[in-house]
Amino acid sequence: MAFAPALDALIDAFRVLPGVGQKTAQRMAFHLLQSERQGGQRLAQALGEALERIGHCRQCRMFAEDELCDICRSSRRDARVLCVVESPADVLAVEQNTDFRGRYFVLMGHLSPIDGIGPEELGLDQLRERLRDGEVKELILATGATVEGDATASYIGDLAARHGASATRIAHGVPVGGELEYVDAGTLAQAFSGRRQL
Amino acid sequence: MAFAPALDALIDAFRVLPGVGQKTAQRMAFHLLQSERQGGQRLAQALGEALERIGHCRQCRMFAEDELCDICRSSRRDARVLCVVESPADVLAVEQNTDFRGRYFVLMGHLSPIDGIGPEELGLDQLRERLRDGEVKELILATGATVEGDATASYIGDLAARHGASATRIAHGVPVGGELEYVDAGTLAQAFSGRRQL
Repeated sequence: MAFAPALDALIDAFRVLPGVGQKTAQRMAFHLLQSERQGGQRLAQALGEALERIGHCRQCRMFAEDELCDICRSSRRDARVLCVVESPADVLAVEQNTDFRGRYFVLMGHLSPIDGIGPEELGLDQLRERLRDGEVKELILATGATVEGDATASYIGDLAARHGASATRIAHGVPVGGELEYVDAGTLAQAFSGRRQL
Repeated sequence: MAFAPALDALIDAFRVLPGVGQKTAQRMAFHLLQSERQGGQRLAQALGEALERIGHCRQCRMFAEDELCDICRSSRRDARVLCVVESPADVLAVEQNTDFRGRYFVLMGHLSPIDGIGPEELGLDQLRERLRDGEVKELILATGATVEGDATASYIGDLAARHGASATRIAHGVPVGGELEYVDAGTLAQAFSGRRQL
């Protein structure tokens, strides 16, 4: 059903968004055309500008408009501690929920040889340079609690050891507020093997 | 947390979409910047073009790039039967799932005095003109099976009667494939009161 080529093109274009299929794309297009034309105009403009202006921080690979992101530029952040995460969303999660005051290194993925993602794709050459500089004393490995996240953390841990920096892995176990009864098997096993002296 | 003003603006702009909150907006923005820059570019362009080009059909109020939509322009559609629906999405649903070959009239809403939506807002003046022309013989009232949809259908039914056109309401009852046991009370009551001679 082709009512208007521009409408079909818009519905098709919306499907590039994560989790958006034909029905949702159609609903989005209709909603904007029917009752949010101004908001739609603003979205088109914001999208164009963001794609044009936003690149990656030269130092930590986070999204940034300038060469360095705000955190790498700030002198109030501890340059001796580097938190290694998989994605920009992880940086936001750490910033919003912890009192971490060091800097970051964003891998933009995890090691996955089957997808052709090796150390170079994750910018580990860049990380090695920073470790070689000697300013970084500790790496906090905050990659995901998945097989790939663990493998990536272990690889980067070796890298840190070779450059005389310490590396720590964030704790995995029973989530705060979680009841033992409802925790999945893998998490419970991890919580037991990772138990600590009180 | 302001990494980049352009990024914050983009996340904020995505929230205009239906069902998209802060978290989803952030995920959409990150996804486009990280791995779908081309798709993002295409979305920005499609959105700009659609908002510029798409207006409403002069005759049926459906979305259209020209003065008349394809269906109103087509000589193969029966001009004597008009299906009255609430929204452009309804037109698509009827087109895709029924063998209706008449034309449409899209109200772009339903009567809702509390929101200030009366007959003029729904284009009923326009519909009256078409009924006065005398070409339309039957109105199929396919507004929603809600209190507002019913009230709107009843109002338009009176309008049709005054102009000598017949008006029918689409059937409401147990959905095809539905088990009586699981049908809600209102639907079942409607199915009984709307029973027909075999």
